[in-house]
Amino acid sequence: MEVDVQFLPMAPAHNSLSNRVVVVIDVLRATSVIVHAISRGAMEIIPVITVDEAFRMAKNFPAGTTLLGGERGSRKIPGFDLGNSPREYVSEKVGGKRLILTTTNGTRAFHAVSSAREILVGSFLNVGAAARRCFELGKDLLLFPSGDEGNLSLEDVVCGGMVIDCFIHKDKDKGSIHLTDAANAAYFLYQQFKGNLIEAFRVSHHGKDLINKGLEEDLVYCAQVDITDVVPVFRNGVIRAA
Amino acid sequence: MEVDVQFLPMAPAHNSLSNRVVVVIDVLRATSVIVHAISRGAMEIIPVITVDEAFRMAKNFPAGTTLLGGERGSRKIPGFDLGNSPREYVSEKVGGKRLILTTTNGTRAFHAVSSAREILVGSFLNVGAAARRCFELGKDLLLFPSGDEGNLSLEDVVCGGMVIDCFIHKDKDKGSIHLTDAANAAYFLYQQFKGNLIEAFRVSHHGKDLINKGLEEDLVYCAQVDITDVVPVFRNGVIRAA
Repeated sequence: MEVDVQFLPMAPAHNSLSNRVVVVIDVLRATSVIVHAISRGAMEIIPVITVDEAFRMAKNFPAGTTLLGGERGSRKIPGFDLGNSPREYVSEKVGGKRLILTTTNGTRAFHAVSSAREILVGSFLNVGAAARRCFELGKDLLLFPSGDEGNLSLEDVVCGGMVIDCFIHKDKDKGSIHLTDAANAAYFLYQQFKGNLIEAFRVSHHGKDLINKGLEEDLVYCAQVDITDVVPVFRNGVIRAA
Repeated sequence: MEVDVQFLPMAPAHNSLSNRVVVVIDVLRATSVIVHAISRGAMEIIPVITVDEAFRMAKNFPAGTTLLGGERGSRKIPGFDLGNSPREYVSEKVGGKRLILTTTNGTRAFHAVSSAREILVGSFLNVGAAARRCFELGKDLLLFPSGDEGNLSLEDVVCGGMVIDCFIHKDKDKGSIHLTDAANAAYFLYQQFKGNLIEAFRVSHHGKDLINKGLEEDLVYCAQVDITDVVPVFRNGVIRAA
């Protein structure tokens, strides 16, 4: 099995994805929100790219079944039910509900890799379970850090490196897994932040921006490791529990 | 000053380069060859993209003034005077000569960033001098790891991280330098290989390939740090000593 990392958030060639498993990672905060919301009983999450699309899509569903969530400029969108803090997505609000989610980077990433064989949602919250699921699937693996408006996001690559770290420890034969240079780069970068993930947030552009906006508690929340075994799957435009 | 790293070897938008200094890095082996050859008295080096272009260009110059160097598949090109091992570029051969160089990744990189304000040649061999020169120039800086056929090369990013490590230690005010997430990623990745650079070569795809081809001595050569103060400059299609 080959493990690769898409270091810049650009759509890979579609034909390169058809036999690969992709893990989309946007730890600050879209994929942390998704993992958390599904673990709290959300029925499904529909990631969309624009705010207009979110409002339009909500009209397709019966009243009371669907919530709008997401951010622009890290802030809750006017008219939306929820912002982009995982802490908002509690069972009482999201249990049994459909969420329509639009964020600056993360929701876009799902559409960039939509031709992959299987698309999983990764974050620190479910990193061990995500790596386990990838190993069970037994296909070539691409980690897809969503980045920050087209640029590399340190914290997403570090999380990709942690998935790889978990993944290679499952290889008892030691030799069936080939890491590309990009995968090795993410793996070694993660070693620098092992045991101190929040430091990666504090160094990163996006982390600093959230701190400046008074959202430091979200960093603490998103830096938690393995608090759930949920590994949501994106298929046909919709994210659900596997 | 902002310091950034182009993690994948793609041409940045030309207008984004006009006020930036770019350091092109292809430690295995093009930029190590260039730095070494200039330090050994080569008059100038013309990087070209194709083998045909190299042969055609050589005809423009008087006999005896010009040598052809480079590789395809890591091997010397038939009809060329020199391959792509820095060790071949000794004073007796290259002193006072013009070199026309074509390699798979490195020579291509110079053309990808040709609109930059200043384009320097970086490698481990001249890493301290390259960082010093960047600091003197006082402009926003882009490290450009040349990669490996469009993919990330671990060793080039590690070298970029070492340039950054040298560079930020020159900032006595501690605060005038802003590292992007990509720059931080390269910097932290370098910390993993600090004092053991050859390990980055042994892990990397390109390094392994050179070992398999019996060229391990080149790895040892290219892993030497600060053996020269030469920082070649690429201007108007030609590389010369600054």
